[in-house]
Formats: sequence, structure tokens, C-alpha cells
Amino acid sequence: MKKKRMFSRMSGAPVIGAVALAAVGWGGQALAMEALPDQPPVPADNPMSTAKVELGKMLYFDPRLSIDGTVSCNSCHNVMTNGTDNRPVSVGVKGQKGGRSAPTVFNAAFLSAQFWDGRAATLEDQAKGPILNPIEMGMPSEAAVLERLNKIPGYVAKFSEVFGGDKALTYDNLAKAIAAYERTLITPNSPFDRYQRGDKKAMPEQAVRGMKLVEKVGCTACHTGPNFAGPALPTGQGFFQKFPANVDNEYVEKYDLMGDTGLHSVTGKEEDKHMWRVPTWRNVALTAPYFHNGSVKTLDEAVRVMAKTQLNKTLSNKEVEDIVAFLNALTGEIPPQTLPVLPQPVNMSVVGDQ
Amino acid sequence: MKKKRMFSRMSGAPVIGAVALAAVGWGGQALAMEALPDQPPVPADNPMSTAKVELGKMLYFDPRLSIDGTVSCNSCHNVMTNGTDNRPVSVGVKGQKGGRSAPTVFNAAFLSAQFWDGRAATLEDQAKGPILNPIEMGMPSEAAVLERLNKIPGYVAKFSEVFGGDKALTYDNLAKAIAAYERTLITPNSPFDRYQRGDKKAMPEQAVRGMKLVEKVGCTACHTGPNFAGPALPTGQGFFQKFPANVDNEYVEKYDLMGDTGLHSVTGKEEDKHMWRVPTWRNVALTAPYFHNGSVKTLDEAVRVMAKTQLNKTLSNKEVEDIVAFLNALTGEIPPQTLPVLPQPVNMSVVGDQ
Repeated sequence: MKKKRMFSRMSGAPVIGAVALAAVGWGGQALAMEALPDQPPVPADNPMSTAKVELGKMLYFDPRLSIDGTVSCNSCHNVMTNGTDNRPVSVGVKGQKGGRSAPTVFNAAFLSAQFWDGRAATLEDQAKGPILNPIEMGMPSEAAVLERLNKIPGYVAKFSEVFGGDKALTYDNLAKAIAAYERTLITPNSPFDRYQRGDKKAMPEQAVRGMKLVEKVGCTACHTGPNFAGPALPTGQGFFQKFPANVDNEYVEKYDLMGDTGLHSVTGKEEDKHMWRVPTWRNVALTAPYFHNGSVKTLDEAVRVMAKTQLNKTLSNKEVEDIVAFLNALTGEIPPQTLPVLPQPVNMSVVGDQ
Repeated sequence: MKKKRMFSRMSGAPVIGAVALAAVGWGGQALAMEALPDQPPVPADNPMSTAKVELGKMLYFDPRLSIDGTVSCNSCHNVMTNGTDNRPVSVGVKGQKGGRSAPTVFNAAFLSAQFWDGRAATLEDQAKGPILNPIEMGMPSEAAVLERLNKIPGYVAKFSEVFGGDKALTYDNLAKAIAAYERTLITPNSPFDRYQRGDKKAMPEQAVRGMKLVEKVGCTACHTGPNFAGPALPTGQGFFQKFPANVDNEYVEKYDLMGDTGLHSVTGKEEDKHMWRVPTWRNVALTAPYFHNGSVKTLDEAVRVMAKTQLNKTLSNKEVEDIVAFLNALTGEIPPQTLPVLPQPVNMSVVGDQ
């Protein structure tokens, strides 16, 4: 069994964790696959409420959180499709392309760390990033965001309703509201979940074969837990793996799998080179293109690449098809939602000609 | 009474219409202001249906109708706010800026011609434009749009359900579906509408003063009808006016009101210079910035500019405030809607790295 590392990101710089992998064994040891829980973990300092989720949804859809009023959270993490944008890398303000493919927001609430490199411990931390990133939403500062929102009476009132008092409109509270909304973005009742709960007809035969195969081949050594993104870990302690683990294959160059050093780009540490947070399998049929750089266009090719780079195995076409059938059975139901109505200032716009 | 022109756009090049303006008199002659009807006119060749509206909503929200998957109809005509984007001019694919400010989609179904220059007779015609415009959504051809949609089984099935047969996925039908959805984007029950239907407390005193003032000053010579965008005219026969009518004032240069020649830019005819379709007043409190070039930031300034350029009148601050109060009473209710779920191909993306 190859060496595995887990990094704790609870207190700043990542350190090698000592979390046991007993539950994640593979090669003969059957894995307990889990149906998706109805509710994700909720942090004690950001309890859920209907009003908070409603505010968070407004903010999530509001392009005025970007400098020129063109990019919202939903632009790249589109909850009308699959929680992402189906692009290799996302496009921010002024047509700027990002460096990595947007991960899906769906079921992100189950992850113990956010971003491809796990640099944010919580959804709250994550939400604060893109708004201020010059090539994403491009706001110059937290103060600039708050100044803009303060010009919109409906937001001032809503923040006050949700967080109380006249100093409720803060950047922390903005992030809390967005995170609360994101915790409602759970996609239950995939064919696999129904199968797992006892409906043995919910998955076609081929998907059942694929389900057994991902354990046998070894994929579920990492893609485990209810989100197929690793074991449940304390918040901030992301489940990381090296990718590519094996570099002696055609895919590494073909898909530029080593151009981005992953966690190393955050920490600068040699041992963090090419370490990545294990992404979810849920709805993976809908989130093409694949990998951190969006370089692989189809799921069958992604399966081949992973088998080779991570497990040094060359799968037959039939094996690939069976695994893809199983992954297709992980497509859940997008939660029905009403369209938010974004509050507006009257007789003026808060966005200029940036 | 200054000379008025109306142009018919029913049969290609606009010609001066002979439509009587008897109902649009001003200066002593009281105008019948109208509440917004519940339903807009529906063309005989595009009847409404629930399934068609549902398909149209999907298409309206789908950024994959743009070359790089970043811009949907809703990006610039955002139905979560006011049917527009609150920018001076919109931003299309690759960060390109358009030449004119996005008009609101709300109540556009009541207009007899679309676009600022009225160059599209119907919502169907209008919907076809931005998708293929290189600086808006940038698709290279109708065929390219259809090729992409044909890769999405959910769309193929939905077009077939709505339009029948296996050749249902056409560009015309795409436009019909989007137009059908847009005909549901009506904002009824503004304070003015409730006032007009008998609730005399629905508008504050100041708005009632403003309502009388817009007739007295002369604004409703053009801003008439249920949409305050001109009289009801046959489809395609847009209600045009010259703007600015009076050029001897500070505003013309300050706000570059003559840099764009309006209808003339379509027809090339001298008499069409600076002729524009009269825009709606409905929800105007929410659609800043103002005018075809989005050059005026606030509604009170827009009122001053219009009074001077169109009626050669200089309003007092109190008059401006009263008129703005009335215009604020034209903000209606955005129709409650569910978020569409966009169909997806499995295991691949239809958008590349354009």
C-alpha cells in the first residue's frame, strides 16, 4: 500500500497528520459506501436559519459583488446546472481566465477543506476569497464590498434582520450568509443513494459492476465517505493526495498534470508538491471537463488517467465503461429553489463603468 | 405641439407612419393612464404553453448559448433584479463592452418593437440577435448554436416535447421559446397600478403630484400607454422619437447624447438620425444608469435632462422630486419563479476553452 499523507490545515501551515486510514483500506477489505446525509455539518458559530439562507442566496447570485457587476458566485458555481461552469478554467471580470477549474458547490458543505488546494478551512473562509481576487470578482477590498452593499437599503435591512443590530453588515457576516446558503446545496437521492438505502433496482447492472470495480481497482481508497471525497475529518483538515502519484505515463505531459504544484503553491514546501484535496465523485458525470486544470474533456478519459496515474493500472474499455456507469449513478437531485429577488437601490446604480 | 414621427418597421426599411396621435395629446388634454394588463399580446404563431415557457426559461438562463459559456440572456437582462444589469453598457464574452445600455426585459412584451433602435419587430426577432453578436454572446452561427444544443439530450427532448417531431430543435424555435418565457416577465401591481384600479392610498401624495406634473409638463406625450412607452401600435411599428430634440443645452455634450445616431445607424437615412424607440417608465427607479449610452447615473438627473432636451423646460428641484416620486410608484412586482435546472450532457462538456 502506497504511503498516504493527510495534512491538517487547522492552524495555519499544513502539517502531516496522524489520522489513521483504517477505514479506508482497500485490496480485499470491503468499504462501507455511504448514502448522502440529508444535512451537512453546521458550524456552531453559524447556525442555519431561513432568513440567513435567503440572504446568502441573494448574495450568491448578486453580480454586484464583482467590481464591474458582471460576475457572481453563481457565474462559476452555477447551481442551475451542476454547481460549476463546465469550462476548463473559469472566466472572471474583464475576461480574465483563472488558473484552475471551478469545483462544484454542490455538497461542498461535506468537505473538510475548500479550494483545490484546501487552503480554506470552511465554506465561510472560501466565500471571502473570490470576491477579492483580482482575476475573479475583482473587488479591491472588504471595505469596498461593504460600501457598495451599504448603498442598497434592502441588504442593510436584511443583514440587520439576520445578524441583529446596526453593525450587522460585515464581511464576516456576508461570508456566513453565503456559507449558510451553500449548506442547502445538497444533491440527495442519486441512484446510488437509493440503491444504498435498499432499492436494489435503482442502479442498472452495469453501475453495480462499476461500484464493485472501484473498490477492487482501488479508487475508493481515496474516494470514500458519503461525498466520495475522503473520510470525515475535522473542519480544516483536508484530505490530500498526491496527483499524479505515478509520473511515468503518457497522460502527465498530454494533460499537463504537473504544471500546477497544488498545495505547494500555497505553502512553498517541497513535500506539498502536487498534493491536492481529493475531489468529490458526486455529480461528476455533469462536471466535465476534469481535473484541477480542466484538461480532460470526458469522464471515461478521466477514469483512465486516474487509474494509471494513481494506481498504475491500465483499465480495459469494459472496466472504464462500468466505472463510468457507476459514477453516472452518483448524479443526485438539484434542490428546487425559487429565484432570489436582489434588493436594489432606487434611482441609481451601485456599479460604475469599471 | 412639436412635430412627431412614427416609423413603421413592419416591412423592412422604416417609413413615416400616419398613425394619429389623437390619444396622446397634452397641454390641457387629460391623458388616460393605464394600469398594466395581466397579459401581454401573444402572436398567433407562437402560442404560450407551460412547457414552452419552461424551455424558454432554461435557454434564457443558459450561458452555453455563448461561445465560451459565460454569458446568458440573463447576464445582461437579469430577471433577479430589474431585467437589466445596472451597468452603463453591458459586458459580453471576452470582456467586450457593448455600445448601448441593456434595456430591461420586464414588460418588453408590451413594446411594439425591440432594441433601442427598434430594429427587431418582435421578442422572437430580438432573441436571435445577441447570441450571434460577436461582442455579446459570440456564437459564430445559428448552426453552431444548434450543434451545441443537439449534444444535450435534455434539450433535444424538450424541444421535441414543445414543438413536436424530430426537427423541433431549430433556431426559430429557440427564439420562440425564449420569447414565450419573456412574455411571462410582467411586473404588475405597482403602487400606480393599484392607485389606478381604485386604491387611492397606494401612491403617496408626492407621487400623485408627480403624476399630474408629467402630464402638465408634457412627458406623457410620448411616455403613454400601459407601459409608458408610447401608444399601442401594430407589432413592428415602433414608437420613435428624436432624442435629443433640443440640442442647445449643456447636457448634450456632458452626456454625449449625439455620439450614437440611433435608428440612423440601422437605416443610414438622414431623417432617422437620433431617432430612438421610446423606452418604458416601468421599474425605471431600478434601471439606472439611464439613456441608450447609460451616461446618466441618477433618475433625478435623467428627469432634468429629458425635460430640457425634449421639452425645453428647466424644472425646479421640487418638480423633479415630485416626478421622481411618481416614477418610483411605477415599480411593480417581479414575478415569483423557480430556478430552472439546465439540462446537461453526461460525461462531457459542450463548452471548450474559447
